[in-house]
Amino acid sequence: MSQASKEVEEGSVFAPKFDANGLIVCVTTEAATHEVLMVAYMNELALEKTIETGLAHYWSRSRRSLWRKGETSGQTQKVLALRVDCDQDAVLLEVEVGGDGKACHTGRKSCFYRALGDEGALVFSADGA
Amino acid sequence: MSQASKEVEEGSVFAPKFDANGLIVCVTTEAATHEVLMVAYMNELALEKTIETGLAHYWSRSRRSLWRKGETSGQTQKVLALRVDCDQDAVLLEVEVGGDGKACHTGRKSCFYRALGDEGALVFSADGA
Repeated sequence: MSQASKEVEEGSVFAPKFDANGLIVCVTTEAATHEVLMVAYMNELALEKTIETGLAHYWSRSRRSLWRKGETSGQTQKVLALRVDCDQDAVLLEVEVGGDGKACHTGRKSCFYRALGDEGALVFSADGA
Repeated sequence: MSQASKEVEEGSVFAPKFDANGLIVCVTTEAATHEVLMVAYMNELALEKTIETGLAHYWSRSRRSLWRKGETSGQTQKVLALRVDCDQDAVLLEVEVGGDGKACHTGRKSCFYRALGDEGALVFSADGA
């Protein structure tokens, strides 16, 4: 392993790697249960704002704008921990969700409310979450 | 919401959305605990192979090759569920890890073994996992 890789993987310097579009992928989980709520993207500003305020901020690729989660819905995400993966090209948030606790814009707790069934069709989670 | 968006979000047709590079992001979790183990990417072939074999396959962006997780290390990932998010541009695997149960190439269970501390430096998880 090169010295540079070693520093990235085994060092204590936070050096998030943004992609060619200036984005880093973020997996957001419910701190209490580890459940994955959503996957979104951050640019440098969104990451900075998240760290500074303790509230999850993302970059909306479709709207091309900074977005504080829960800004309009009240479903804010209070960040209890911000983790980074081995090669520092993905971050993970452990959050406490405000409002009614839902993270998905469809009104569900998690965006991952469908699983691929044996027949090749998507099956909705029974609890609607 | 347009009819097309509605079908993507509320339909039962699995229609994964690959990005401009032909990739889709995949969050892999330990089925028993929901813990996030890693974030990786799949191309269409990796996704097909994952579904066909029930073992996680990814696309290595650095090596530019298809990669069956655990091929050399024995740390295979048996897929118990494959989920997709609301807009179908991210997948989530719930897996059972083979071998010594480690998913990260650094020898740890999860790739997310460091969290950002109050002083701005990364802090390693106490359990080394």
